[in-house]
Amino acid sequence: MIIVLKPTDNTTIAELKNHFEGTHDIFVHHNRVAVQGITRDDLNDVELAAADEIIEDVPAAVQGSRQFHPEDTVIRTAHSVIGGDHFTLMAGPCSVESLEHVTKMAAVAKASGATILRGGAFKPRTSPYSFQGLGEDGLKYLRQAADKYGMDVLTEVMDDEHVKMVAKYTDIFQIGARNMQNFSLLKAVGKTNIPVMLKRGMSATIDDVLNATEYIAAGGNHNIMIAERGIRTFDNKYTRNTMDVSIVPVMQKLTHYPVIIDPSHAAGHTEFVTPLALAGTAAGASGLVVEIHDDPKHAFSDGPQALKPNEYADMAEKALAIRELLTGMKTEQAEAGR
Amino acid sequence: MIIVLKPTDNTTIAELKNHFEGTHDIFVHHNRVAVQGITRDDLNDVELAAADEIIEDVPAAVQGSRQFHPEDTVIRTAHSVIGGDHFTLMAGPCSVESLEHVTKMAAVAKASGATILRGGAFKPRTSPYSFQGLGEDGLKYLRQAADKYGMDVLTEVMDDEHVKMVAKYTDIFQIGARNMQNFSLLKAVGKTNIPVMLKRGMSATIDDVLNATEYIAAGGNHNIMIAERGIRTFDNKYTRNTMDVSIVPVMQKLTHYPVIIDPSHAAGHTEFVTPLALAGTAAGASGLVVEIHDDPKHAFSDGPQALKPNEYADMAEKALAIRELLTGMKTEQAEAGR
Amino acid sequence: MIIVLKPTDNTTIAELKNHFEGTHDIFVHHNRVAVQGITRDDLNDVELAAADEIIEDVPAAVQGSRQFHPEDTVIRTAHSVIGGDHFTLMAGPCSVESLEHVTKMAAVAKASGATILRGGAFKPRTSPYSFQGLGEDGLKYLRQAADKYGMDVLTEVMDDEHVKMVAKYTDIFQIGARNMQNFSLLKAVGKTNIPVMLKRGMSATIDDVLNATEYIAAGGNHNIMIAERGIRTFDNKYTRNTMDVSIVPVMQKLTHYPVIIDPSHAAGHTEFVTPLALAGTAAGASGLVVEIHDDPKHAFSDGPQALKPNEYADMAEKALAIRELLTGMKTEQAEAGR
Amino acid sequence: MIIVLKPTDNTTIAELKNHFEGTHDIFVHHNRVAVQGITRDDLNDVELAAADEIIEDVPAAVQGSRQFHPEDTVIRTAHSVIGGDHFTLMAGPCSVESLEHVTKMAAVAKASGATILRGGAFKPRTSPYSFQGLGEDGLKYLRQAADKYGMDVLTEVMDDEHVKMVAKYTDIFQIGARNMQNFSLLKAVGKTNIPVMLKRGMSATIDDVLNATEYIAAGGNHNIMIAERGIRTFDNKYTRNTMDVSIVPVMQKLTHYPVIIDPSHAAGHTEFVTPLALAGTAAGASGLVVEIHDDPKHAFSDGPQALKPNEYADMAEKALAIRELLTGMKTEQAEAGR
Repeated sequence: MIIVLKPTDNTTIAELKNHFEGTHDIFVHHNRVAVQGITRDDLNDVELAAADEIIEDVPAAVQGSRQFHPEDTVIRTAHSVIGGDHFTLMAGPCSVESLEHVTKMAAVAKASGATILRGGAFKPRTSPYSFQGLGEDGLKYLRQAADKYGMDVLTEVMDDEHVKMVAKYTDIFQIGARNMQNFSLLKAVGKTNIPVMLKRGMSATIDDVLNATEYIAAGGNHNIMIAERGIRTFDNKYTRNTMDVSIVPVMQKLTHYPVIIDPSHAAGHTEFVTPLALAGTAAGASGLVVEIHDDPKHAFSDGPQALKPNEYADMAEKALAIRELLTGMKTEQAEAGR
Repeated sequence: MIIVLKPTDNTTIAELKNHFEGTHDIFVHHNRVAVQGITRDDLNDVELAAADEIIEDVPAAVQGSRQFHPEDTVIRTAHSVIGGDHFTLMAGPCSVESLEHVTKMAAVAKASGATILRGGAFKPRTSPYSFQGLGEDGLKYLRQAADKYGMDVLTEVMDDEHVKMVAKYTDIFQIGARNMQNFSLLKAVGKTNIPVMLKRGMSATIDDVLNATEYIAAGGNHNIMIAERGIRTFDNKYTRNTMDVSIVPVMQKLTHYPVIIDPSHAAGHTEFVTPLALAGTAAGASGLVVEIHDDPKHAFSDGPQALKPNEYADMAEKALAIRELLTGMKTEQAEAGR
Repeated sequence: MIIVLKPTDNTTIAELKNHFEGTHDIFVHHNRVAVQGITRDDLNDVELAAADEIIEDVPAAVQGSRQFHPEDTVIRTAHSVIGGDHFTLMAGPCSVESLEHVTKMAAVAKASGATILRGGAFKPRTSPYSFQGLGEDGLKYLRQAADKYGMDVLTEVMDDEHVKMVAKYTDIFQIGARNMQNFSLLKAVGKTNIPVMLKRGMSATIDDVLNATEYIAAGGNHNIMIAERGIRTFDNKYTRNTMDVSIVPVMQKLTHYPVIIDPSHAAGHTEFVTPLALAGTAAGASGLVVEIHDDPKHAFSDGPQALKPNEYADMAEKALAIRELLTGMKTEQAEAGR
Repeated sequence: MIIVLKPTDNTTIAELKNHFEGTHDIFVHHNRVAVQGITRDDLNDVELAAADEIIEDVPAAVQGSRQFHPEDTVIRTAHSVIGGDHFTLMAGPCSVESLEHVTKMAAVAKASGATILRGGAFKPRTSPYSFQGLGEDGLKYLRQAADKYGMDVLTEVMDDEHVKMVAKYTDIFQIGARNMQNFSLLKAVGKTNIPVMLKRGMSATIDDVLNATEYIAAGGNHNIMIAERGIRTFDNKYTRNTMDVSIVPVMQKLTHYPVIIDPSHAAGHTEFVTPLALAGTAAGASGLVVEIHDDPKHAFSDGPQALKPNEYADMAEKALAIRELLTGMKTEQAEAGR
């Protein structure tokens, strides 16, 4: 486990470094220290004080923690900036269906402000009898469509074996909800330098999500964003999942990674997507990732939750307006505070 | 159970009325009919057609259904209008603590736009050893404070015996989450003409909530609003409950009753209240009910979730701005559509 | 709140009594003390030690706690003994449908070992359009049927106004799941001396259940049993609720009240009732409460979950055999341990 | 998707085969047909009848379905038989800690009837800072220990890359709860002929579990067993997860695969493990998989839930007695029925 100590002085920090360096990872920020992979007993060996007195917390994450990294993580790709004061729109079809179709959707996405084109080429379908995606061909189409409109690509990688192949085409890896605790996969993307969007698992607690980011960060890749796509609760008659909008302020307190809202999978039905997108925006999310389709009835997957082009345009306009409004109000207050 | 039939013609409607009137309640809206308290077998007796062919739905609610009542319910009290295009702020302390204190809180609430003063005089505490409220004295203080500032009173009624007593002081009954399926209480408030705010139970599905409204409406009281205060899920480490913001668009589709967001009980911690309030507003809620306190550390109950006066003012300003923004945008679109 | 102190000596106990008696309830068991309705600050006033050092726990319940009452609560009614080493069968129809029918069901229940006849006269139905029970007539039929076969009556009381009326007919009050936190009702039955079966609410935590028992016990009625009838989870396609069988050993550790399993409402479908009943028995429950019907298809309520007489007989035989087996094995071990 | 048709005649079956064979998988059992990978529209092309009239179900699984495979799956390994009328004990330490320790635990497991030795060499820990297992060395120790006592090995495989390596040492693959929907991994073990124990995910519905088995079966591996280890609910204060014991009868109805209970991960605390194990046994499970340790306080992982050798012996004795009792009673009834 990882142990965070109470704020201490430089002498103690030096002593701890002396004792643990070489055998354990040590994280220091100002007067705060965390040591990885130790137990309470190990601390007693340092003979500084009773472990109980100097331990502050046994947290889910250290590299992802605001305590050790107070500044927002800001992720920069060729065409986008994610996190900090930025607000980023990502849109595209659930599945890449053809070069022609994904190119059309890229145009729609871009027209209303999206800088990132999403699309699935490998689909983690609940049933093996459902459409499993176009595979590498799908990735090629996605790349071409994004390039045509000067956009970044966001696409799911489903297993560690495919990481290298998908890396050839994408700007951002998506780790799907079902793979949020596929630790082999997390370690594999953690060893690349490609940004990762980690989707919250259906029954993942906030701490589970933070722990999962830590698997990625442990490999050296700190370009992580967290996406909420709804959790499983007792009620799923009218929505596919229950969007936990509180993840936005909670994560902003605990971690420096940007939080993105995926209203499409949360809602499951077109008519509820926009209200959820606006809710996430108003709560302070760093961006939205939305599924769009020009002919939802014939979509290869998840048609019922895809926004049509005009619905998407309406949603984007409102979301950007809310974001601008709240940013403006914050600025005024900050200025008034000077 | 209640059965809604597929759209039909006037002859069939007349036949159904002839057959069931007197023994069952019949609801008609245009070419749509619902009959209460019948079974599939009863329908077969009418010999219109096989029951399976003419049944459209066995819904949770009929009186609360948009199908039979497409227009928004708009509730008018002395100082407030709730529902429709209106947006209503309700604020006050969790518990009424003294005349002086509740009066002070009324001034704070009013100053930032609240027209309804909330406060508890009978507290449904999980433990019998916790503060149970000031009782009727609390109601008197609440009434006085509200009157001083020209506000309405919203307060909880906990059992059917107290309905008459509480009715002397309040403008709106609150039914707490734990009593959402206390059917005796629902029937009791359903027989009054005082508006009711029904709080969603911790594990109540959307249909459960609609069914509960139907118990109130069955008594003749249609001035009902629904409040979301968070549901129970697997994750409650950082928030007290999980706010299900999707209830707003879902209920707006299914029912004509206004939906109010209670971000205080959902968040459980001050720092998350405002983002949740703004999320609910952006999703289209008809209002907010928020707990405020000038000295949260010494509040008689739920101090950790109370907004301080300045925090409340900031939240109210932002919520009203988002509401205005979205209302304005809708208007523009509607006009453009002409 | 209620505070339990760490084990202490007689002098300190005397001091605490001296300080708090008259203004607060004090519970003492050997060297352990609990004081009700105090805060941490109150403790500091006693100037014994820093509150943090002497506080052991802030528990859900004291009167229900094993710490203060290590012996099992054993409830004795005219024909039954519940709790301790006893195993009690309770069976009957969901709703009382007629004198004839409930009498027939009493005969069936008794024949396979039930000593308690259950049946609903006031039904807390989710929808107001569903059958609401026969009312007081139902209670009369239930009483007559039970008397004919020398059985006790178990029936639900839904509101505090009806407590006196229902008390005329029943030997055990049932508090339904939806009313588990109807504190007015809990207080009302707490003032009687009639045993109470408290059903766990659909989303009630273990602590919520204990707190609810405390509302009853606070009135002086300690004849309380707890019934598990399934909780709400994300999966309810094949069963109506999710039976949390772990409540049996957990409650046996925390409290002295007997735990009863209601497999009927947990399962929701006949075919799963017996396995759940046997699971509860093997986990150590003090009894079973089961719905039976000779013609489930035409039952007034909950037909799909009712066991037919022969299914019930099979279930009862197996449950009693498992109970006997486990009791016998425990005895052998205890003897071997001498 | 996969579509199951209503029972039909041989002519229609022939027609369907003629139409779909070569392009789609067809499953036939008596007069029942399922076609994989088709849509409702495809059915209309056959021009047999309107799709709605001939479709019976769109199920989660076909290869795992009782409809198409009514007989129990019985899995035979070198030293064990799992499923059907058999009852199988599996026990061992959470993590393989050393050759000496796992050998000692194998002796304990075997002495009370276990024929399968469980142990983890690759540990899917929530945090990257927790012990991750001994790796291939652990597998070697486990194999040696099992061989010494004539037992089979059950161990977790965490990613598709490791399938071949783990296959060298194990008799049964375990797929952990977090990987239940790691479809790449499911496909990989589906291509082997080594039996698979699939653990239910923390928020996996019954249908999700069946769909996951279908990914394995689709590769040709039908030696599948399903393990319940508790699901995530709103209450986890006293138990680590909520054991859903109803999965036993529900799965026995829907599928022919054996269901195993893992009471250790469900309980999370030693004192609740035995009651849950007995509950699962009484509900009809085909076996138990239990964590044991001679010195739980110093276990490398999950010490709090490990049974000590004597506790395990007591549990095993009781579970076997219950199983024998219920098997005996079933036999008597079956004989009486002749």
